[in-house]
Amino acid sequence: MIETEDAERHRAKMVKRKAVQDAEVAEKQIEKGLLIVHTGPGKGKSTAAFGLLVRMIGHGRQTGVVQFIKGAWSTGERAVLERFSDLVTWHTMGEGFTWDTQDRARDVAAAGRAWDKAQELMHRPGMALVVLDELNIALRYDYLPEAEVIAGLMARPAGVHVVVTGRNARPALIEAADLVTEMTAVKHHFAQGVKAQQGIEF
Amino acid sequence: MIETEDAERHRAKMVKRKAVQDAEVAEKQIEKGLLIVHTGPGKGKSTAAFGLLVRMIGHGRQTGVVQFIKGAWSTGERAVLERFSDLVTWHTMGEGFTWDTQDRARDVAAAGRAWDKAQELMHRPGMALVVLDELNIALRYDYLPEAEVIAGLMARPAGVHVVVTGRNARPALIEAADLVTEMTAVKHHFAQGVKAQQGIEF
Repeated sequence: MIETEDAERHRAKMVKRKAVQDAEVAEKQIEKGLLIVHTGPGKGKSTAAFGLLVRMIGHGRQTGVVQFIKGAWSTGERAVLERFSDLVTWHTMGEGFTWDTQDRARDVAAAGRAWDKAQELMHRPGMALVVLDELNIALRYDYLPEAEVIAGLMARPAGVHVVVTGRNARPALIEAADLVTEMTAVKHHFAQGVKAQQGIEF
Repeated sequence: MIETEDAERHRAKMVKRKAVQDAEVAEKQIEKGLLIVHTGPGKGKSTAAFGLLVRMIGHGRQTGVVQFIKGAWSTGERAVLERFSDLVTWHTMGEGFTWDTQDRARDVAAAGRAWDKAQELMHRPGMALVVLDELNIALRYDYLPEAEVIAGLMARPAGVHVVVTGRNARPALIEAADLVTEMTAVKHHFAQGVKAQQGIEF
């Protein structure tokens, strides 16, 4: 049961909040391609990047994905993106996890090719968003030269959004980025013995 | 230039890491519908939930979305999901943000209807994943009774995954959940005066 006084207090609070929010929105005038970083040990880094990509596709814009380290996003993600193949360009290093290949020289070469592809996609006319999935891992293992990668990211055309994912983002990348979100694991079902399941982990 | 010794040390390290990872995977045998919570002040909570939903659709499974508080996901998300309308059931409270409605009694009633829909979706045969977007906000404002909602989530059929999003997840919900990720804003472009842009914020 809502008392009249409570309802009025609630209304006054919400009017004030809306005014603050409207003023904040009006202040922001800059449009630019963002350098976005999803890092931290929690889940959702690549999944949120995938969500941004799909949303951009929904707006009918061109998108690209380069996968560093991991061989592929899951069959679930691929099945959806195949329905929008005119709006997605996909490149995978195709070497599986690094701890499966056990050959550093091959990983370094593959990372270099993936970075070349990333540069090409960022400079492709009409490109709106490029996801560089697990690039942080390639940087962490020194598979790619950090300074060159950051310079390349900063030199992209003005309107292009880039999302970089992976744990342990380098401090210099965080410094260069516009938007950095850290995903923290508060609680994880693997600790309870639950296995990887379709649609959740793959 | 990679020295042979370095390459061998790298290989040994990666062999060991793979063995540890394989053992961890083998330990996990339980399959169950997970109660997943995306909370925290950072970005990516709803976007990662959307990514999980789209991935599940890619596996050809049935999904549902109930939006609490927010009137709608963006046109970008809707445009994509309309292409898979046989695999997505959608319900929005349809009242806009609470600080736009300024009528608590109406919000409480709308939240109640949205929760009824959530219950119906969780119990629908064949349902794989239900996203309860911004449910945390409805709980925070006491638009819904916490104990009843948590009991309803726990009473869902065994195979159904649920993702609850929104800031300030209630401690009792975190306690009940299998997987909780907190999104933390390390850096945000709004602080630099950059406005909301198509495909990023909407």
